[in-house]
Amino acid sequence: MYDVEKIRGDFPILHREVNGKPLIYLDNGASAQKPQVVIDAITNAYAHEYANVHRGLHYLSNVATEKYESVRGVIARFLNAASEDEIVLNSGTTEGINMVAYGWAMPRMQAGDEIILSVMEHHANIVPWHFLRERQGVVLKWVDVDSTGALDPQAVIDAITPKTKLIAVTHLSNVLGTRVDVKTICTEAHARGVPVLIDGSQAAVHQPVDLRDIDPDFYAITGHKLYGPSGSGAIYCKPERMAEMQPFIGGGDMIKEVSKDGVIYNDPPMKFEAGTPGIVQTIGLGVALEYMMGLGMQNIAAHEDTLRDYTVERLAGLNWLQVQGTTPDKSAIFSFTMDGAGHAHDISTILDKKGVAVRAGQHCVGPLMEHMGIPASCRASFGLYNTKAEVDVLVEALELAHDLFA
Amino acid sequence: MYDVEKIRGDFPILHREVNGKPLIYLDNGASAQKPQVVIDAITNAYAHEYANVHRGLHYLSNVATEKYESVRGVIARFLNAASEDEIVLNSGTTEGINMVAYGWAMPRMQAGDEIILSVMEHHANIVPWHFLRERQGVVLKWVDVDSTGALDPQAVIDAITPKTKLIAVTHLSNVLGTRVDVKTICTEAHARGVPVLIDGSQAAVHQPVDLRDIDPDFYAITGHKLYGPSGSGAIYCKPERMAEMQPFIGGGDMIKEVSKDGVIYNDPPMKFEAGTPGIVQTIGLGVALEYMMGLGMQNIAAHEDTLRDYTVERLAGLNWLQVQGTTPDKSAIFSFTMDGAGHAHDISTILDKKGVAVRAGQHCVGPLMEHMGIPASCRASFGLYNTKAEVDVLVEALELAHDLFA
Repeated sequence: MYDVEKIRGDFPILHREVNGKPLIYLDNGASAQKPQVVIDAITNAYAHEYANVHRGLHYLSNVATEKYESVRGVIARFLNAASEDEIVLNSGTTEGINMVAYGWAMPRMQAGDEIILSVMEHHANIVPWHFLRERQGVVLKWVDVDSTGALDPQAVIDAITPKTKLIAVTHLSNVLGTRVDVKTICTEAHARGVPVLIDGSQAAVHQPVDLRDIDPDFYAITGHKLYGPSGSGAIYCKPERMAEMQPFIGGGDMIKEVSKDGVIYNDPPMKFEAGTPGIVQTIGLGVALEYMMGLGMQNIAAHEDTLRDYTVERLAGLNWLQVQGTTPDKSAIFSFTMDGAGHAHDISTILDKKGVAVRAGQHCVGPLMEHMGIPASCRASFGLYNTKAEVDVLVEALELAHDLFA
Repeated sequence: MYDVEKIRGDFPILHREVNGKPLIYLDNGASAQKPQVVIDAITNAYAHEYANVHRGLHYLSNVATEKYESVRGVIARFLNAASEDEIVLNSGTTEGINMVAYGWAMPRMQAGDEIILSVMEHHANIVPWHFLRERQGVVLKWVDVDSTGALDPQAVIDAITPKTKLIAVTHLSNVLGTRVDVKTICTEAHARGVPVLIDGSQAAVHQPVDLRDIDPDFYAITGHKLYGPSGSGAIYCKPERMAEMQPFIGGGDMIKEVSKDGVIYNDPPMKFEAGTPGIVQTIGLGVALEYMMGLGMQNIAAHEDTLRDYTVERLAGLNWLQVQGTTPDKSAIFSFTMDGAGHAHDISTILDKKGVAVRAGQHCVGPLMEHMGIPASCRASFGLYNTKAEVDVLVEALELAHDLFA
């Protein structure tokens, strides 16, 4: 039994007011709030158990190292990876995808080689590939979504040519809520010898992820969206790809030996983790993932699907509102624009006055905005602690905004 | 009046025991402990004021953005930089130096070009340059330290040739405690047209840093050593160098516009900050630096110099102990080895039984260890909260270790 009121009790920030109204936090797509267990883990780490990891032998260093390193296994379990050695710990998806771009893609791609992207990728899964275009003449090939926001896996596969070196796609759109059939993409791409990187920043938050079933080459997640600390994250790398990848960030910890003349690198995954890591953030991420698994990813998904259905129904009643992304199995993420003079930024400001936090702008998806022909939108993105009653307040606030701008 | 007992009251972890003994934390060179104000700032941010920064317009996003962005100015003040626009926020020195290696050095260096390093650099200021050697045939030129651990600025300048493209040196050795006259190096190098990167990871912790006086091209600091959160940091970049630098990490926030065909990058320093940053860590770093400035960097340095003098005196009485690094104005960082069978790791284990946390090993300075001809050492590194009484316990514990291994 998913008791959302009890769950809300775990998140201290949800009890505060904003502009004299109870906070209704619908900006989860940008970053999620943190349960008390995560905050407590951070406090405890700094107040009682803090030291640098890996390089010490004293008590606190051993405690910190054990707690930090255990998170690798938690992430492997969360994603159903075959081994914790396939998990590289980092600061989030942006670092993860850049690691693949610099460490794996740049050394093996030449002018004219192709990378396939969907048009709804987040900038984190676009700009690193633009680096390869700018610096090495790699060609970016874009696959459109249809009018509902769906991405046809076959269209991605059809874009493969003998020049294709990588497919990089999101598992779940941060704006449209579209879920992508990445398993079919991986299966068909692998049959053609093409590796696949999946941006799991959003999907891992909203649904169970089974990497042994999907079988991607790379799968990036970001901790701050997963109810964990800012500056935490990880990327799954298939062992064969990891073996092909050169180190990205250089420094301590990722080496076995450094001399004046050369470096002997550490074994993967350590080879890809340089310097003092985000020790306490990573410990906090482990606690956040345990919290999610404690609720059950299927249960979270089911709860959010209920919210999605209710929101679809309520927004359908607002005939002056256009929702971008209408696939039936989408996640509870709603991008919308409004008839009349209301710019997305103005609408979000009105909602804010009612305590409703949504995001307004381009949501880091420039090409998608261009594809949809809109300069900006508002986005209400739901999380595991949101309620139907909050949907009602959102709708009331939207009606107020419409009245003001109509 | 520097009241160390009162200051110790600000650090909760200093009141705990380890192995039944009061914790004596002398592993500050690896990472420093956090004052309650920093822990409270983190807790408050997550429990009451958390949202993603920059891209929102709602109340919490504005609060988080203001707090996060204000840290840029705190860091500029802490380092006496001319403008906060010269500060790139990041996860620490390792990321900062890699940004310079990838963004500034790689595009402008060719086979045969030279980078000058001191032999006592930390791996964070070595491995990124080895990348240029491995990948582009850049030559690393090493400048030795003398038998006291001093680095002669003139020796660094004498190593300059027409091929020299960069000098990369530490401001303060993490093992020897040596302070380096980086101002002279910068002045003389600039007179010869050579830019200088300074690794300030240790120096900024132990002494006032005045970048307008030193005038480096790059100056990297790391938050977790500065009594701030893990995963926080910054690098100062001279505006001319920043203008020459290409973006390193690609993603959201560092762009003005992304289309299918290209990217328009943001203005510096934002151009070098991609994706959701370490929001709460950076806020915590700001509080940590304010805490240090509140105590006064001159006062911290004076306190630690007193500890250094006392430690030098006490260790001098142990004629079976060899201390590496004996410059008179060194910082309170002591690397040592012991006559007899006592390996550094064994010694640190004995000290740990007495509650004394020191580090044992190579301390991320492979070339220095090779230069000194020792495989490993113990290191006791002091911070602003350490006391003479703790030095006495260290010495007692060392005597015990010597008795056991002699």
